[in-house]
Amino acid sequence: MEKPLILVTNDDGITAPGIKALIEVARKFGKVVVVAPDSPQSGMGHAITLTKPLRLHPSAMFEDDVDAYECSGTPVDCVKIAVDKVLRRKPDLCISGVNHGSNSSINIIYSGTMSAAVEAALEGIPSIGFSLCDFAYDADFSGAKDAAEKVIAQVLKNGLAANTLLNVNIPKGKVKEIKGIKICRQAMAKWEEEFDARKDPHGREYFWLTGKFVNKDKGEDTDEWALAHNYVSVVPVQYDLTAHHGINFINQNWNL
Amino acid sequence: MEKPLILVTNDDGITAPGIKALIEVARKFGKVVVVAPDSPQSGMGHAITLTKPLRLHPSAMFEDDVDAYECSGTPVDCVKIAVDKVLRRKPDLCISGVNHGSNSSINIIYSGTMSAAVEAALEGIPSIGFSLCDFAYDADFSGAKDAAEKVIAQVLKNGLAANTLLNVNIPKGKVKEIKGIKICRQAMAKWEEEFDARKDPHGREYFWLTGKFVNKDKGEDTDEWALAHNYVSVVPVQYDLTAHHGINFINQNWNL
Repeated sequence: MEKPLILVTNDDGITAPGIKALIEVARKFGKVVVVAPDSPQSGMGHAITLTKPLRLHPSAMFEDDVDAYECSGTPVDCVKIAVDKVLRRKPDLCISGVNHGSNSSINIIYSGTMSAAVEAALEGIPSIGFSLCDFAYDADFSGAKDAAEKVIAQVLKNGLAANTLLNVNIPKGKVKEIKGIKICRQAMAKWEEEFDARKDPHGREYFWLTGKFVNKDKGEDTDEWALAHNYVSVVPVQYDLTAHHGINFINQNWNL
Repeated sequence: MEKPLILVTNDDGITAPGIKALIEVARKFGKVVVVAPDSPQSGMGHAITLTKPLRLHPSAMFEDDVDAYECSGTPVDCVKIAVDKVLRRKPDLCISGVNHGSNSSINIIYSGTMSAAVEAALEGIPSIGFSLCDFAYDADFSGAKDAAEKVIAQVLKNGLAANTLLNVNIPKGKVKEIKGIKICRQAMAKWEEEFDARKDPHGREYFWLTGKFVNKDKGEDTDEWALAHNYVSVVPVQYDLTAHHGINFINQNWNL
């Protein structure tokens, strides 16, 4: 039987320690092909590159058995070009990350790491995004690697529901401090903007986007609850954005 | 009673004819504030600008009763900076568009126009994205304006279900050819990539992202069906991406 073919990508760029950690885990399961951005792409969401052409170059950054490429585009571009121009067949799995920083709750919507995983799922590829709740470049990825190995094993053996992928977040800290894995729903939290207004040397105003994460969702079945209690959170995610309760509301309350 | 306060944005940029058409409709309902990108931002999805500061400048492009600003960021940045730095209170409505080109089905996920509308909904603002299935700069926006007027009136009067917004797409063509408005679900369609590989003048390869839209979802309750039959499609959209059937699948099939 052919070894599983595993596509690895991220949004922090091909040189980030997080993708190296994920590749180390992926090599235990199959043949690894990496197509990752050649520069950091955090916060790119599901952006695609329409007005510029893309470049794609081989990379010798990883072990000899890893085929790696760096791409000038966004994380979603990376998945698209991997499927069309790099991979000879549809991969058995796409894994994205390990992201430096949480993608729990509403962070998923801004995340290039998760959008790459969503794009792979759209292609019909079983897909998982991994994020560590630690922004540090030299973060301890041992907990993330342990969680990734367990979750990948389950997905390869037992699969995922149709038209879904996984958003996996790992608490900061040592692997032995992690209490286990919880299957969760996305907490209904949000960011409150606080733009930092400054003056440039010419006296003209500019703004840095900053914000405060606000979670009023106290549910114990949420990813935020799991992470706050030192569990790995696994949220099954869908890309059918239809709000069926919204259809019912309109049918009952509108008169078109 | 105070007039409704309406925030208008888009992804084609502040100079696009589509936003002008939408502003003309919005002025019938209330006080209009525009914060839109200073350059085209199609395909930016839910990208936010983290590594560069933003600029925000007043614009005198529109009628005197319209407060307008152009922002150097993405559509989502525009909504964020509008809420934090431009608007004195939470608006009663955010409308995004009219986009030049369809955002039906899976296009929603790549669309800056729809992501701006999603961001406003996250802020608790009733929110609608409008898109016309015609990419032409000189497209006929009369059908879009007619649909926008009807849908805005319903949202202001009868509201939306909690944590939802609307994705409204309008068929190409004259207003009299449009048969009506259908409340729909998102069709499960996708893009199949076909990168166009070329050589630059130095002999090095580069790639243009192109693709083919493939819709295998034949449901007559979908946005694609409605548009193909000359109806305006209205899809209620949610930003809670939790796949609850995916939670059930894991609980039944995995052994962690």
